[in-house]
Amino acid sequence: STRGHRLNGSRYVSKTATKSVSEFEYDAPSMKTAVPGPKSQELLRQLGEIQNVGAVHFFCNYEESRGNYLVDVDGNRMLDVYTQISSIPIGYNHPALMKVMTNPNNVSTFVNRPALGILPPENFPDKLIESLLSIAPSGMRRVQTMACGSCSNENAFKTMFIWYRNKERGYANPSEHEVDTCMINQSPGCPDLSILSFMGAFHGRTLGCLATTHSKAIHKLDIPSFDWPIAPFPKLQYPLEEFVRENAQEEARCLEEVEDLIVKWRQKGKPVAGIVIEPIQAEGGDNHASPDFFSKLRNIARKHGCAFHVDEVQTGGGTTGKFWGHEHWGLDDPADVVSFSKKLLTGGYYHRDELKPDKPYRIFNTWMGDPSKNLFLSEVLNVIRRENLLEVVTRSGKALLQGLYTLQTQYPHILSRARGQGTFCAIDACNDATRDSIMIKARNKGLFMGSCGEKTIRFRPALVFKEYHVHQLLNILNDVLAEHK
Amino acid sequence: STRGHRLNGSRYVSKTATKSVSEFEYDAPSMKTAVPGPKSQELLRQLGEIQNVGAVHFFCNYEESRGNYLVDVDGNRMLDVYTQISSIPIGYNHPALMKVMTNPNNVSTFVNRPALGILPPENFPDKLIESLLSIAPSGMRRVQTMACGSCSNENAFKTMFIWYRNKERGYANPSEHEVDTCMINQSPGCPDLSILSFMGAFHGRTLGCLATTHSKAIHKLDIPSFDWPIAPFPKLQYPLEEFVRENAQEEARCLEEVEDLIVKWRQKGKPVAGIVIEPIQAEGGDNHASPDFFSKLRNIARKHGCAFHVDEVQTGGGTTGKFWGHEHWGLDDPADVVSFSKKLLTGGYYHRDELKPDKPYRIFNTWMGDPSKNLFLSEVLNVIRRENLLEVVTRSGKALLQGLYTLQTQYPHILSRARGQGTFCAIDACNDATRDSIMIKARNKGLFMGSCGEKTIRFRPALVFKEYHVHQLLNILNDVLAEHK
Repeated sequence: STRGHRLNGSRYVSKTATKSVSEFEYDAPSMKTAVPGPKSQELLRQLGEIQNVGAVHFFCNYEESRGNYLVDVDGNRMLDVYTQISSIPIGYNHPALMKVMTNPNNVSTFVNRPALGILPPENFPDKLIESLLSIAPSGMRRVQTMACGSCSNENAFKTMFIWYRNKERGYANPSEHEVDTCMINQSPGCPDLSILSFMGAFHGRTLGCLATTHSKAIHKLDIPSFDWPIAPFPKLQYPLEEFVRENAQEEARCLEEVEDLIVKWRQKGKPVAGIVIEPIQAEGGDNHASPDFFSKLRNIARKHGCAFHVDEVQTGGGTTGKFWGHEHWGLDDPADVVSFSKKLLTGGYYHRDELKPDKPYRIFNTWMGDPSKNLFLSEVLNVIRRENLLEVVTRSGKALLQGLYTLQTQYPHILSRARGQGTFCAIDACNDATRDSIMIKARNKGLFMGSCGEKTIRFRPALVFKEYHVHQLLNILNDVLAEHK
Repeated sequence: STRGHRLNGSRYVSKTATKSVSEFEYDAPSMKTAVPGPKSQELLRQLGEIQNVGAVHFFCNYEESRGNYLVDVDGNRMLDVYTQISSIPIGYNHPALMKVMTNPNNVSTFVNRPALGILPPENFPDKLIESLLSIAPSGMRRVQTMACGSCSNENAFKTMFIWYRNKERGYANPSEHEVDTCMINQSPGCPDLSILSFMGAFHGRTLGCLATTHSKAIHKLDIPSFDWPIAPFPKLQYPLEEFVRENAQEEARCLEEVEDLIVKWRQKGKPVAGIVIEPIQAEGGDNHASPDFFSKLRNIARKHGCAFHVDEVQTGGGTTGKFWGHEHWGLDDPADVVSFSKKLLTGGYYHRDELKPDKPYRIFNTWMGDPSKNLFLSEVLNVIRRENLLEVVTRSGKALLQGLYTLQTQYPHILSRARGQGTFCAIDACNDATRDSIMIKARNKGLFMGSCGEKTIRFRPALVFKEYHVHQLLNILNDVLAEHK
């Protein structure tokens, strides 16, 4: 049971855990200075002349980094469970990716970045088929690449708006009035449509995406936005298995609010063209919801004629133990649009046939992605299959979550609400100052973690994160907490 | 004089023009099939199962492309004066860029894409200094990299909004009410600020950018937008030197309208935080304005407390004969923000010190650019300097524009309004069908051009486009026009 291991008293983890790690990797963290060390501090000063460096943790030596270990410019080697905001799929300098670079057949793909929408390379359909289409979500055979997560979501929104208006006008040509008014940003050409999003959501920071992002004020302050509906995201109690009834009630409350908002915004003259949601709210604090919630939400979207957009920018790529977060829902028709980026190295989105744009140049930009990223993605997928990395994630994730349960049992005044799916795990500290202090102390002992929400620590290791690494993580965290006590 | 060469009667160009082209390049176009050929057509069918391919011209063999010559999958070799929507700076497979790829010191930069905003690589400040800062616009020492042109403009807009609101609140902390309302997209936290743009402008297709784009309806139809002011862009008569008085009047009319709109939108409660403009409107039809116009517009922005954002995504990188289009204005303080992408291979924007964000995470995303693109950019800048490519552009541009003047004199019923700066040239056809027909016929003879506006042909060759190539271009165009006659 999920409780057993939380009740076994003393340290769950062992410093003698067996090592089972690839040849090319390091054994363990190795710290030489506090972080940031003197070299990082000097570089921070230099970069500060050019950019705001308030978010920079330290400077890295990527050449020397390997697998799960990130090396900084002062020679500190840290176990990295944040992995560039969850964007490194199979660790640093993976030999398979190094080979992609040294293959002379690939040079041209890096040197000549094409305008994919007008002049694709010969191998483009094949590369899409062997990479992105080989992992396409259920019910989706069409995919559009983009440069980053924000562009992916912006264009996914546009795809839903276009689909919605085409439905409304019965697939007829737009009127002259629509054509004229759209040129000057006015309705009906630029219609008052909306996207329904959830409090706590993060979908990016460009102006369209930002109107659906509600995780932290610092992202949104001073930026003009749209009057779009925002539903409550369920605030569940963890472990989920222990609060099934309470959580179901909370989810029902949120779903009811979603329907109310859809009706209200339709009455306002700003109908909801699409609903956008993360399978697990990440930046907003690692907030989970049940498969039942998502299944019902998908039905609500269908019932009201709204497109259903699942944003898998952070949950995609295997980190939950399945390739896509939404696979845990067990639905055949999970979404109309699924967007991705980060671990997939290229941005983009899949969509159902019904949402394909009716004309060229409606979804378009200069680059439309980058084929050199598709090359790396193909190889990442090969490695995931060859090394059964989804199983590794499931196994490591189980060990990580059990370890977190043990820690919160040992340190109930500091830690609570351990939760996770695969290695996509999180735990709350009692407040933000404690969370930040734990993170800094852990970093100085060689464990680099991420934060999210108000007081949450998030774990986002690469897919090559083995049980051996879990034990290293838990040992360091335990040491920090023991000192904190 | 600019008129002389237009009056010399018969063909200006010669098939025997001396060749002066790098070793690695081809001599001339070489056509095997009509374009798209059978292989391209088969690939179009395949890709059509995955994406809308209505904008795809043909499929390319980038491995075999060299310098100014683009080779397609059917073995057709075309002189490319569109260069992936003006995004290839020094031609295909330039040997200097191939070397970047084969240098083992660079491998890690490609394989480990960092989250630049939190964990930059050791050489990041140096790379910025040797690449982007070495070409910084006058008065700007700060630069933020981004992945693409749209993200660059979106974040440039955000930078202007943040600057504007900080001024308004006297650099005090935001109120609790602002913090609360911004989370739900409401004013005052998400204020009713606007960006003033120009009819015919193109600044990208994400929702913020798209609200300032007014070139073609197909870009904007069905996408919700903002009520932001749109000023007329001067409709000048060409050649500019012959219509100085008329053009000055037209520019004065537009500037007056700009001031009126700024006042009107302030009264509406949607003050203009920034003005965005291209040095030459590209997508909108290659529309020029005089240095005097831009200088006065810059003063209007200053007078009304609006930031002045020059979008150099298409004009930047040397194509006008100076590195930035705005350099032709001769101003010491040309702008508050200058955005770039395309030929610079990385997106981003420079800004004056005064516009630096006051806090971290206000301008932020996962990748914040891509250091592997900075590597290529450094090498591109080396080549531009070593091979004096700005002089090459100026020389070739002069030859190109003179050739276009000659052609429009020879074919006045077909061509008009030849115009350009450097090789950033354009000419109008009598209508869109004629324009499209000329482009297809030229393509089948081995000349690949771009279009813009309603009936304009745009020339966007790489910086390695020599007089020898100009003559090839003009010969093919002349042949097409002679047949059309």
